[in-house]
Amino acid sequence: MNIKIKWLRDQLKTQNLQGMIVSNPVNIKYLIGIEAEGILLITLRENLFITDSRYIEEVNTILTIEDEILVADKKNISKEEYAAFFMYCENVGFEENFVTYADYKEYLQTFRVNLMETENIIEKQRVVKDEKEIQYIEKACELTDQCFEYLKKFIKIGMTEKEIAFEIEKFYKTNGADDVSFAPIVASGHNSSMPHAMPGTRKIKDGDIVLIDMGCKYKGYCSDMTRVLFINYMDDEYRETYNICLRNNEMAEKEIRDGKNIKTIAQNSNNNLRENGYIPLHSLGHGVGLDIHEEPFFGIVYDQMLKENMVLTIEPGAYKVGQFGIRIEDTILVTKMGMSRLTKADKGPTVIICD
Amino acid sequence: MNIKIKWLRDQLKTQNLQGMIVSNPVNIKYLIGIEAEGILLITLRENLFITDSRYIEEVNTILTIEDEILVADKKNISKEEYAAFFMYCENVGFEENFVTYADYKEYLQTFRVNLMETENIIEKQRVVKDEKEIQYIEKACELTDQCFEYLKKFIKIGMTEKEIAFEIEKFYKTNGADDVSFAPIVASGHNSSMPHAMPGTRKIKDGDIVLIDMGCKYKGYCSDMTRVLFINYMDDEYRETYNICLRNNEMAEKEIRDGKNIKTIAQNSNNNLRENGYIPLHSLGHGVGLDIHEEPFFGIVYDQMLKENMVLTIEPGAYKVGQFGIRIEDTILVTKMGMSRLTKADKGPTVIICD
Repeated sequence: MNIKIKWLRDQLKTQNLQGMIVSNPVNIKYLIGIEAEGILLITLRENLFITDSRYIEEVNTILTIEDEILVADKKNISKEEYAAFFMYCENVGFEENFVTYADYKEYLQTFRVNLMETENIIEKQRVVKDEKEIQYIEKACELTDQCFEYLKKFIKIGMTEKEIAFEIEKFYKTNGADDVSFAPIVASGHNSSMPHAMPGTRKIKDGDIVLIDMGCKYKGYCSDMTRVLFINYMDDEYRETYNICLRNNEMAEKEIRDGKNIKTIAQNSNNNLRENGYIPLHSLGHGVGLDIHEEPFFGIVYDQMLKENMVLTIEPGAYKVGQFGIRIEDTILVTKMGMSRLTKADKGPTVIICD
Repeated sequence: MNIKIKWLRDQLKTQNLQGMIVSNPVNIKYLIGIEAEGILLITLRENLFITDSRYIEEVNTILTIEDEILVADKKNISKEEYAAFFMYCENVGFEENFVTYADYKEYLQTFRVNLMETENIIEKQRVVKDEKEIQYIEKACELTDQCFEYLKKFIKIGMTEKEIAFEIEKFYKTNGADDVSFAPIVASGHNSSMPHAMPGTRKIKDGDIVLIDMGCKYKGYCSDMTRVLFINYMDDEYRETYNICLRNNEMAEKEIRDGKNIKTIAQNSNNNLRENGYIPLHSLGHGVGLDIHEEPFFGIVYDQMLKENMVLTIEPGAYKVGQFGIRIEDTILVTKMGMSRLTKADKGPTVIICD
């Protein structure tokens, strides 16, 4: 049987659940590799993916007999069949952080079981990646490094942020990525001071700072990287902030290894930024996988231990409000004794010469 | 005061609600024109948009005093202030079709009021568009027509579906659209039999069928259109199915006018497909506005009357499983006596000559 479903069934048993309704499409993709609208019903005996006629053909080409997953068109399932599926179940898990209140009520009516919260059980399993998942993320990171190399030659004075953002999308889509993993951020000059700046019509100038935050998806798995480029030369003011941010990034990297507390590392990073006169505007990083932002959240709020084969970003940022900002971000893999960087582009500072 | 908020307050009064929590960002955009993470709290006396530090600056540049909306950073609001906001309210509406079960529980704890379901009150208001909304949708449709004209010259034998899909995105982004309204579908040959095919690496061949389903956003408002192109010539088999689909589409168009029942029109379309030997795989259409799929759903399930200034798609599809499919779709505006097509590209059949 599908190994992930087997794991999930074992988990359900330990929590006194006899079944689960999986509604989050990212979790369905994780468990059975399918991207289609529908819900996955798991019991300790059988599994049923309920979808609609638009997807049946596609789904049947992906699933194999070994998956042991029945596929049904929701139009062909009677009320009685819905109610019968969990007949031998007393408690059935659902995804309280994904399912709407209205769907919750409908599930109650349809399945007539006790619906139990599952506290992101699948999301928590997703934090530690297997070999294949790591390979896909590595590939997404490699494409991101290549895109950055390409941009260093592509960017010219007078181009708008939007044009550069568009070129990033084009590079990914024509070089083997499924898609971007999020809309690229290209923030130049004073725009770089806003962590969530949208690319606009500001044109690149001589002496500019250009912050680029980008990533792509490969077979559904994401990469995420931020680099800052300087156009023709680098102001001393920029250099000072850059070095503070870079040292902070490297400090965090050195603390990463299996067994370390995420919260401690994030606190150390924030303290270091504050000591240097910067207010931390966002968390140090986040998990990366099928979602661009997923567990674990690399912040100062929760105690959580790093584990081998977690994939996260490290992305400290030093911002001067209304002036400029520096953020240096990599996607990294946690190892037994440390970490390895999956995005490998040089961390600069990088000055590019352009006309 | 903001006219849409005024309308909403009047609605709340008639339903014995003294306030509402608006969480769906599309509804927030509709009501107050803001795109930022946050929630909008409405009472009969005041309105509060709670967001975070990343958006405060942006939000304050958009709202005016006439909007009568207070803006607050969630970090600066105490538990007591949250609880006090609905102090004089007994029943407060929430969006049960958007809010997760976990958020519902949190709202209960935070606001300490009776939370009442609002049955898509705002979505239902959004179905009838005002003059400005129609202008924006018209512009999005115009860009889609232009994109289709462009594609007729762009497509060449040997190109992959992905390359064409990418060109669609590029066209939109460099010709004034905000973005695509959904990932374009380019399905060639047998892939066209799957209504939700993802563009892949299949290459366009002589004699191929190429189904293109695409749309863009202009100032947040969507367009949606499907056309099928034939490469160099058109097989008789394709022609027969094409004509059945086209007649079905035109039949539905003729039935549209203010006051007609959506369900009847959808049933007639389905019956016509069945009489011709095709199984309807999806509904006849859907509302289009700030969301690409919104109310009303143009299907056989619910009775609903068409109203002047609703915007919908008409998109019958005739599919031969595993072989090919034809879908012809327009975005249309319901008028007093009929309808007007907002996407105006010729409905063919269109054979393009390419090398």
